Amino acid sequence: MRQFMHVLQVRAERRGLTEITSEIRRWVSQQPISTGMLTLFCRHTSASLLIQENAASAVRRDLEKYFDRIAPEGEGLYEHDDEGPDDMPAHLKTALTQVQLNVPVMGDRLMLGTWQGVYLFEHRSQVSTREIVMHLSGE
Amino acid sequence: MRQFMHVLQVRAERRGLTEITSEIRRWVSQQPISTGMLTLFCRHTSASLLIQENAASAVRRDLEKYFDRIAPEGEGLYEHDDEGPDDMPAHLKTALTQVQLNVPVMGDRLMLGTWQGVYLFEHRSQVSTREIVMHLSGE
Amino acid sequence: MRQFMHVLQVRAERRGLTEITSEIRRWVSQQPISTGMLTLFCRHTSASLLIQENAASAVRRDLEKYFDRIAPEGEGLYEHDDEGPDDMPAHLKTALTQVQLNVPVMGDRLMLGTWQGVYLFEHRSQVSTREIVMHLSGE
Repeated sequence: MRQFMHVLQVRAERRGLTEITSEIRRWVSQQPISTGMLTLFCRHTSASLLIQENAASAVRRDLEKYFDRIAPEGEGLYEHDDEGPDDMPAHLKTALTQVQLNVPVMGDRLMLGTWQGVYLFEHRSQVSTREIVMHLSGE
Repeated sequence: MRQFMHVLQVRAERRGLTEITSEIRRWVSQQPISTGMLTLFCRHTSASLLIQENAASAVRRDLEKYFDRIAPEGEGLYEHDDEGPDDMPAHLKTALTQVQLNVPVMGDRLMLGTWQGVYLFEHRSQVSTREIVMHLSGE
Repeated sequence: MRQFMHVLQVRAERRGLTEITSEIRRWVSQQPISTGMLTLFCRHTSASLLIQENAASAVRRDLEKYFDRIAPEGEGLYEHDDEGPDDMPAHLKTALTQVQLNVPVMGDRLMLGTWQGVYLFEHRSQVSTREIVMHLSGE
């Protein structure tokens, strides 16, 4: 077994879900591994990773609205607001989703289901470039 | 280090939590790996994976009720309802839990805690067969 | 590629978030692996793992209050209360966060972002010693 690692730089256009499946697929296809495990790791506390439906865009809008509702912005809701009203909700949304994901690779292909896409979930209103470590091990 | 992969087909009898620990244990015990890492990956966006208490069945009922409460069905709650009122809640419950899990293996045994079991969390009322990729690497 | 495993015993001083990054870093630095993948696995159903902001302590307080709010204690809220009012909320908080995490390692260092720390999230009021399996594979 061998391993390869690369840091992907991604900048969402706006707050919410941005699909990054094709960027990931491109890197995986360039590595000399046909079967193995891909691990993604987001090096941030106000942006996260999510595997979700990549067909109906309404699902993404509903997901974004839902997380805005369960981790709302609001005067006096949080002690921590150093970087504005979306600061603490961003940490909460990150805690409720994930900063790391595994996706198996078989026959040179990501083993995502038919309707699954990998998303960067940007939680800050003022977006910034995010670093996602990609690690692939296998044969 | 070597690796092995298999796709497990599981069909829950009903919506909610179905324990799959024994199916996973069976496959792991058949692989020539005594120490390593097991990764599970659910290839769906309306079913997920959860490691939870496998003793008291009341815990499972409370978990199911809780997720029904925080991701409720309801007329007008969501834009996306192509497949019925449980469609979008299923995506939300998947986002709040996980589609992939790691479980270490040592001395031929899953390193689950005494009270931990691995569950398929089926979120659709009309169940279907689900594919869970099992990947085991180690020695 | 080679692999190493160790079970870390951690006891939080109180319910809530306890940073364990330095304990993890110490073990990783003692293994003969400079590049690879670290997997952490918490062998419990009422304590979990979280990667979160390690700078402002207000973030930790807000996170703890938030999870107390969305998974509240309360008479009659749950069927399962064998071990007291914090029993079922502890399972819910574990389900909403994670019992396992991956962190890539490069150049002998955990690839955590600048503001990321690894936390044990103890959900029981009466704390106990928790076992966290650390597995490192790589070269």
